[in-house]
Order: sequence, then C-alpha cells, then structure tokens
Amino acid sequence: MFKSLRFIRFNSTSTLVSKSIKSSVTTPASNNVNGIEKSKGTGVVFMNMGGPSTVSETYDFLLRLFSDGDLIPFGPFQSILGKFIARRRTPEIEKHYEEIGGGSPIRYWSEYQCDKVCKILDQTSPETGPHKPYVAFRYANPLTDETLKKMKNDGITRAVAFSQYPQFSYSTTGSSMNELYRETQKIDPENSITWSFIDRWPKNKGFIDAFTDHIESKIQEFKNEGKNTDNVVILFSAHSLPMQIVNRGDSYPAEVAATVYAIMENLKFKYPYRLVWQSKVGPSPWLGAQTAKIVGKLEKDDSVEGILLVPVAFTSDHIETLHELDIELVEDLVYPEKVKRAESMNGNEKFIQGLADLVKDHLESGKCHSNQLALDHVLSRQYSKDTFHHPDEIFGK
Amino acid sequence: MFKSLRFIRFNSTSTLVSKSIKSSVTTPASNNVNGIEKSKGTGVVFMNMGGPSTVSETYDFLLRLFSDGDLIPFGPFQSILGKFIARRRTPEIEKHYEEIGGGSPIRYWSEYQCDKVCKILDQTSPETGPHKPYVAFRYANPLTDETLKKMKNDGITRAVAFSQYPQFSYSTTGSSMNELYRETQKIDPENSITWSFIDRWPKNKGFIDAFTDHIESKIQEFKNEGKNTDNVVILFSAHSLPMQIVNRGDSYPAEVAATVYAIMENLKFKYPYRLVWQSKVGPSPWLGAQTAKIVGKLEKDDSVEGILLVPVAFTSDHIETLHELDIELVEDLVYPEKVKRAESMNGNEKFIQGLADLVKDHLESGKCHSNQLALDHVLSRQYSKDTFHHPDEIFGK
Repeated sequence: MFKSLRFIRFNSTSTLVSKSIKSSVTTPASNNVNGIEKSKGTGVVFMNMGGPSTVSETYDFLLRLFSDGDLIPFGPFQSILGKFIARRRTPEIEKHYEEIGGGSPIRYWSEYQCDKVCKILDQTSPETGPHKPYVAFRYANPLTDETLKKMKNDGITRAVAFSQYPQFSYSTTGSSMNELYRETQKIDPENSITWSFIDRWPKNKGFIDAFTDHIESKIQEFKNEGKNTDNVVILFSAHSLPMQIVNRGDSYPAEVAATVYAIMENLKFKYPYRLVWQSKVGPSPWLGAQTAKIVGKLEKDDSVEGILLVPVAFTSDHIETLHELDIELVEDLVYPEKVKRAESMNGNEKFIQGLADLVKDHLESGKCHSNQLALDHVLSRQYSKDTFHHPDEIFGK
Repeated sequence: MFKSLRFIRFNSTSTLVSKSIKSSVTTPASNNVNGIEKSKGTGVVFMNMGGPSTVSETYDFLLRLFSDGDLIPFGPFQSILGKFIARRRTPEIEKHYEEIGGGSPIRYWSEYQCDKVCKILDQTSPETGPHKPYVAFRYANPLTDETLKKMKNDGITRAVAFSQYPQFSYSTTGSSMNELYRETQKIDPENSITWSFIDRWPKNKGFIDAFTDHIESKIQEFKNEGKNTDNVVILFSAHSLPMQIVNRGDSYPAEVAATVYAIMENLKFKYPYRLVWQSKVGPSPWLGAQTAKIVGKLEKDDSVEGILLVPVAFTSDHIETLHELDIELVEDLVYPEKVKRAESMNGNEKFIQGLADLVKDHLESGKCHSNQLALDHVLSRQYSKDTFHHPDEIFGK
C-alpha cells in the first residue's frame, strides 16, 4: 500500500523494510484503488538511458553520460574527466549516429511501446485508468525534469516508474531512480505524485517469449541457407559493466543470466549458447567474455556454422545494436556471413503485451518496489551523489 | 545413441556435432537398452574435486590441485609454481583440516550419495541395472585411475560420468573430463567401457527444492530469535573463478545465477538476496563481489537483521563451507551472531532423489552430453594439456 508521506529524509537508521515509515501508512480514501484516484488515473513512466534523436544532440548526451558517477565511476574527477571524454568522443559517435540514420531510435520506440502499454491497460485495468504514457531518459530528451513538469501540468497524482532495463543494475536503473529522486525534490517538493517502481523483470513472459520467437526466426534463416542448425551458436550479448561495479555486488550479471536461461528453457536447450558482454569503454577491467572476442574466435572454428547474436538486455534498437553489433563487429570478421543478429524487441506485440501485464500485476500487488531494491541501495548508495537513504522515501512501502 | 567406436582422434575438422562420427553409429545389439548390456548394468561415477580424507594427504592434494592448469592457469610455470605453492600452503591447510575434524568429509558424502542413487535407480530403472556406484576425484583419493581400474575389474561396459559440480566450469567439470580422457587412454585403450556424461544440472528439481528447504529452516531460526525475516539477506556463495577463465566465456557464472534464480522463485522472492563469490586465492583478479567483503559490509548495516549464507555450488560440506565460511569468515565479524549458514546437501533425501531422477532421465534420453559441452571445449581446449579435440571422442554422439 502506498503511504501518504514521501521523501522524508530519515536521519536515523535505515532499514531494508523501513520500520519508521510503517506507522505513517494511511488507508486510501474511498474512490481510491491502491492509492489511485479514479478520475485522475495512472501515469506510466518508461525510464531508460535514452539516446540522441538527432546527431546534433550527441555532445550533450555524452556529457551527461560520462558525468554520471553511477554509470561510470571516475571518483572526484568525474566532472572534469566526463567533460574531457565527452568532447573527445563526440566526433566519432556523431559519425556512428549518422551511419545508423541520423539518430537513435530509442525515443521513437519508447514512446510507441509506452503508448501501446497504456492503451492495453485502459482495457485490462480500467479501475486504474486512464493510463497516461510518459518517457523519462537519463541522458537525452525527454529528460526526467521535463517529464516531471509535464506530469504535474497533466495533474498526475499516481505514477509507476517503469524501468526499461529488464535486469537491474545500480549503474543504470539505479541511476535513473536517483535522478527521479533529485528532480522530484526540485519539481514536486510537495509530493503531489505518489510513486511506485517496477525495478526489474528479467523473466517477464512476454519478453522471454518474444526473444524466443526472434531467435527461432533467425535459426530458420540459417536452416534455409542449408546450415546444420545444431552447429549454430547463440551468443546472448548484454552491455558489460566495469568490474568495480560488479564487485560491489551489483544485481545485473545474475539477472541477465536468469533471462538467458529462461530463453534457453523455452528453446529446450537445442542450441549451444553463451552469455557474453559488449560495449566496454576505457582501460579499466570490465566483465567478460567480450562479445567481439568470442565471435572472433568462433567464426574461425570449422565446427561453428553460424553465430546468432541476441541483444538480451535492450528493449529496442540503439547504437549498441545498430552500430556496434551490426557494423563495427561484423566489419572486423573473416566470415561475416556466418553472423546474424536477432531483432530487438522494438514493436513486438508479445513483448508489449508482456509489459502491460507486468504493470497490471504491479498495480494489483500494491507493492512499491521489489524486495531487492533496498539491498541494491545499501550496497551502492555510498558511491552516489545526493540520493536518499532508503527507497521507501520515494516509493513508499 | 552410443556409438561403437570411441576415442578416435579426429585430425580433420572438429564439429560441434561431429559429422564424421555420425556414420559410425551402430544399432545396439539385442538385449541392449541404450547401449547397456542388461546383465552388466551401469556404472555411475560421481566426479568431483575431492579433498584429503586425512590430514596427511593434504600435500598430495594441494600439489595435484595447483598443478592443474585447467583449474588455476599458471602457463609454462605450472609445474614449478604448483609445487612451490603447494609446499608453502600445506602447513596452513593441514591446520584447517585438523580444525574441521581431521579431514574432508567429501569422500564420505560422495560415496553415501552415489550408493543411494544407485539403489534408487535399481528400483526406478531396472532395465539399466544393476547400477554400480563409483567415485572419481580429481585431486584426492579415489583418483580417476584407481576408479577406472576398479571398474574394469568389475567388468563394467557402460558408465555414466556424473559431474558433481551442479554448474559447469571448464576449470572444474572440464578438468575432470580431461582427466577421465587421459586416464582412459592409459587404462582402457581398447574402449571396453561406453561412456556418457551428465555435465551440468543447475536447475535439477531435487537440488533446488532441497536448498529451498535448507534456507527456510534457517529463516525459521532467525524468526525464532525474534528477527524480522524481511530484513534477512540471503547470500548465495559460490566458489569464484579467476577473471582469466571467466573472460574465456566459461559457462559457470551464468549457470550459478540460474540456480540462484530458481531457488528464489521457489521462495517467491520473499527475501533480499545476492549471488557472491568466495575462495579467491592469489593476487590476480577473480570474479566478485567477494563473500567476505559483502558480509563485512552488511553486518554493520542497521537495516540488516540477519545474513544467511548458502553454499550453492557445492553438493556436500568441505573445507570451503566448514572452515572458510563457518570459521574464517565468522571470526572476522563484529556481529557474528547475525550470520547463519544453510546446511549443505550432504545426506538430503530430496537432493539424492533429484540426482537419481537426473541419471534416469539421462539414460532414457540416449543423449551423450549436453549441447553446451562441445562449445565449452572449443572455447577452452587450447589452454588444456593432452585433451581430445571433440567430446564425441570420449562420450559418443
């Protein structure tokens, strides 16, 4: 159930289940379902890193990204180093965005998916409707502050923060959560919006089924080319993390592995597969094995007739699929014809239905966030700037 | 189905599904079920790392362990460094074995479990019986060569190599597999024994259910002490790996994560949890977060009322549970009373039934090994000594 008081900074002890907050839980007024005022409905906010919709937005995007200590921890030199690296990398990354059509499609797909999810929810969960779609990106437009202002103007009083990272990392979902907290303090200090949080969903049925379909469709292509599909290796490729973050006890590697295993269960383990990690930047150690290295090894092995890349931690295409996998990785290969990539989720209807089911279940459960979130925060909050002490301060209990 | 010719070294191309071998598959003679001659039954061979049953066996155990490049890759200095480290560490490790009762219980439990599994199989799978139990350790008695000699003396012609590492790592299961190959070449060059391989079982039902029970029983203890069990953190602790092995694309981290997720599904995600990694040795980077570091952080957090350690990658107690977790880790804590450890599998009947079910399903399937094994071998065989080119050379297809 959602409490009436949020954003109270607890200076005493924190608790995984915040004890001090329990007594402040109020019974929702009549005409309320799980804290949702019937007439005002529910805002559904897709949170993600985002990407520049046009090439000219690249520098601002990179500057925000490299300035985020939750994502890439540079310590006390975050601001200086962030600016330096953003400036140095901009020309190359601008070129990448040009090569994929002049910008990232992540905004288009996020708005498309969220809109569809809300339309489904209006049908399946009328008691929490109308459902109003929003997107809040961490590093690109629409940024969190802009979205919050829009929500206030729209009179939203109940909202679901819906992480579009299927697997939780403090460096991604955690960073969006911290930003939501900081911006809410500025833009909604009177706490007119009651929040809850879908913070992870590594085994959402629609998500798993949709990837299974996308994989089987590419396996069929290999078959049509006369390949023995027993010798096609599936490489699930997820964005990597610095070992510095992995070694704090970040949830992400294990949750990505849960997604992969669920998809392979769907596929009855018919194909050899591996979870590999892409997009390492900088000289510090990141989690491997690296996608490009494993592809480079397998393509040269006579026993491997095909390699199928599956971008298992993204919900839509962006530069890591369209450029890093489809262009950069392939152009370095001796046998590029051996490699295919499974489609990203994008407009997949099973996937979108899965997201809508997830929001419905979340609203029905009355839960404010997962039982993992407070522990994620305990393990990492000391490395974050201007964040809360316990997630209950923003998402209630 | 099992082929009649094994251990043929293929000097041509290797294949994930060995093409050249397919034509040599022969139809089993009558009176055979899946290649098992009815009168002779099936040898069930529990393969594991082992441990010294008495303190005086410690040096030999450590020497074999540190000399194994599959487990701890030292490169060209393996033999010299292995000897040096084994000699240097022996006094301390001998002391540890003294402190846990004068030796490792792994032989006792392995023999106990395998014996029970064979008795169950005699009932549930009479057509592949009688089932004869064997144990083959990689670094302690009974070693693989000793067990192979015994099996030949017993007239075994059909055997299941059954890895007792629930999750596959090339450094553990792979090492046992390579050792089996090398010793078979010496002891059974005429290939009188037909082998198949249970190479991984991260989500075996008995295994998952048994750990769920062991966790719930400790949670109940916390409850009885008046703790709010919502604030008990479950730390699944698995043996870590050098990043050098992780970065080759080793299966292990993702399979351990699959085990953890399955147990948490059983527990309906009621508790916060984390997968952490123990037993790092030496100065090179290993996979984290480290168990001891995370326990050290959480015990001091007021919000954490209890910490439950779960040894999720072991099938019985040995020094990593009885000494590393129960003695070393706890003695460094400020609040040792916060920490409990879930029982290891040891004699758990649900677990043993799960293992028996697994062997039965394996024998019925006619499969020689998982679809992952050839890929594991492709990714790591270059780092191994005197191994085969394709698993079909030992386990058939």
